[in-house]
Amino acid sequence: MADLTVITARLAWAAALVVRALSPRATSANTSAVLLTVHTDALDLTGTDGHVTVRVTLPCTGYETGCVLVSRRNLAATVAALDAAEIRLTAEGSRLAIRTPNARFALPLLDQSALPALDDLPATAGTIDGKNLHATAIAVAGAAAQSDALPIFTGVRLRGRNEGLSMVATDRFRMAAAAPPWSPTGEIDVLVPAGFLADTVKLAGATAVVTLHADAHQFAIAWPGVSVRCAALAQPYPDEQVQQLFLAEPEATATIDARSLAAAVARATLYSGSQGRVSLHLGDGIVVIRGGDEQAGESEETIKATVRGGHCTATYNAGYLADALQGFTSSAVTMQIQAGIRPTVFSDPSGDDPTRLRYLIVPLRLP
Amino acid sequence: MADLTVITARLAWAAALVVRALSPRATSANTSAVLLTVHTDALDLTGTDGHVTVRVTLPCTGYETGCVLVSRRNLAATVAALDAAEIRLTAEGSRLAIRTPNARFALPLLDQSALPALDDLPATAGTIDGKNLHATAIAVAGAAAQSDALPIFTGVRLRGRNEGLSMVATDRFRMAAAAPPWSPTGEIDVLVPAGFLADTVKLAGATAVVTLHADAHQFAIAWPGVSVRCAALAQPYPDEQVQQLFLAEPEATATIDARSLAAAVARATLYSGSQGRVSLHLGDGIVVIRGGDEQAGESEETIKATVRGGHCTATYNAGYLADALQGFTSSAVTMQIQAGIRPTVFSDPSGDDPTRLRYLIVPLRLP
Repeated sequence: MADLTVITARLAWAAALVVRALSPRATSANTSAVLLTVHTDALDLTGTDGHVTVRVTLPCTGYETGCVLVSRRNLAATVAALDAAEIRLTAEGSRLAIRTPNARFALPLLDQSALPALDDLPATAGTIDGKNLHATAIAVAGAAAQSDALPIFTGVRLRGRNEGLSMVATDRFRMAAAAPPWSPTGEIDVLVPAGFLADTVKLAGATAVVTLHADAHQFAIAWPGVSVRCAALAQPYPDEQVQQLFLAEPEATATIDARSLAAAVARATLYSGSQGRVSLHLGDGIVVIRGGDEQAGESEETIKATVRGGHCTATYNAGYLADALQGFTSSAVTMQIQAGIRPTVFSDPSGDDPTRLRYLIVPLRLP
Repeated sequence: MADLTVITARLAWAAALVVRALSPRATSANTSAVLLTVHTDALDLTGTDGHVTVRVTLPCTGYETGCVLVSRRNLAATVAALDAAEIRLTAEGSRLAIRTPNARFALPLLDQSALPALDDLPATAGTIDGKNLHATAIAVAGAAAQSDALPIFTGVRLRGRNEGLSMVATDRFRMAAAAPPWSPTGEIDVLVPAGFLADTVKLAGATAVVTLHADAHQFAIAWPGVSVRCAALAQPYPDEQVQQLFLAEPEATATIDARSLAAAVARATLYSGSQGRVSLHLGDGIVVIRGGDEQAGESEETIKATVRGGHCTATYNAGYLADALQGFTSSAVTMQIQAGIRPTVFSDPSGDDPTRLRYLIVPLRLP
């Protein structure tokens, strides 16, 4: 019952990935454990925190197949910095023995009887470049609510389309939408917890090819050797209203260096007091960024911009403005200000942004 | 009343240093502020958090001398990433105006009337290489108690001696003593809060020459352009008892690679359970590191060592052992185990360690 030899560095990588993929706040022995499943030439590490389930598969030499459940934190920390190139893992009585020529560690075996069975991954929906998925998911997930009475505002809406993978999130006060290129092989029509999506694309990093899996109940992100899944959120999502919001009728449009504007907004935020209000004024060839508050003082900064349309001023939640600008790592961002409290639309003027991100913020109604 | 031009990057460095030197938990407007004192060719930034006082001096072009008090966090954040090479600061009514060609910020002036006057620095005691001071202070301060009914156990004892600067700290269960080379120019005989010492040497970094200042009531660390001070702790300190504790009569002595031992201790700690006990056994040419606990499992690791004297075993608080070994960044550490619960002494066998650190841990009495 479970006996194998494995390359130490590979097991260390796999165990560390399981720990990073899951919440450290365990509610039971199961949710702080990792299940080791030994095959003749492969070892699966499977862990769950009750919401997210991760599986990592790595090559091994299996002498005896079987399953053992141990503390994932202690397994990862034990093998993290061992000198020996290879280690042997053997289930012995109530312990998993981890042996190198100079050391022996005995991890208590945990009770597997309460472990839920793990279904197969949902069907493949398509593949996407890891770097594009990362950029898109981080930008879009940031527009979702952290928590809300209505769970749809905590999710990212993913829909497969031929031309691109549509990703949308909104907390009702701002919205992000993107459509990175992808290679569809099936259907995707799912609402995914935004926190799960953002955390998991960070794990995948710049992996060349990432596969998305989805059905009505589950969503998974997979890359070679690794899959991470969680339950989908309940639908429906207001897809049509979302599309209409981006049909802007701008009063004025400014194209401006995104980094300079973000830096000026960060400084104006210091002067915006507890309300956190920053205003943008579009003038002749300039955008003026202002913050002000009785207690915090006043700030006014001017940046050159290409402005079309009449002079106008809009005031925003400073944090939303900072979040929106962070998504535009290209050199410029175009903002379209609409009348009254109709939302302002931020987009990339060059068309070079592969994620095709658009961001929308509802301006503040001033007294 | 206060008008000057200053190089932006210099002011940004100085303001950031004031923020980092002080606690972010302000108890009053004074303790969250920075005082700007404008001279004709220099600007002083002075701040305090009620315990620590920092002063940074930088060159400027002063048009009008004077003092203003503003929020140090907002000053630092405003000037941190400004594009303009130079900025002008001008006191105007109830505001300090910060101007660049494209921006104007107005920080509210705070009331200076409650500011305590700042005495001159205490007399110079001597100078020391910043890198040596850093290594010594971090290692020694770590042996002090975080809080204690008896304040002397939260302090680091500094005494000037011709051959070296003596630094000692103990929380009664372990003790660290070091004697880095220095160049005395006066007296030093002071007990300094360990946290202050550790934080301030991190600020000084690897500065080539650091000056220590002390009198009966105050202690300060200074380097070009910067001084950081705080009140000394009340004496007396049990200097004689401390010296006697290092006169070991070892039962057995082992010399062992410090990093390997530290890594093995870290792994054994995972298996040491809530008690956090790790035992070291000195055998023939080996040290065996063991951890074990009903819940956490068992570990046993063997490392080659040069051992003199009989076989013996001692058990330690795992955290103290880890702290002690961290001080020996050289390749080897020598440990002298004494009989019973007389302390174990850790030192550098090569004699190359410029800080001349010795560390002492009282072993645990086992049931």
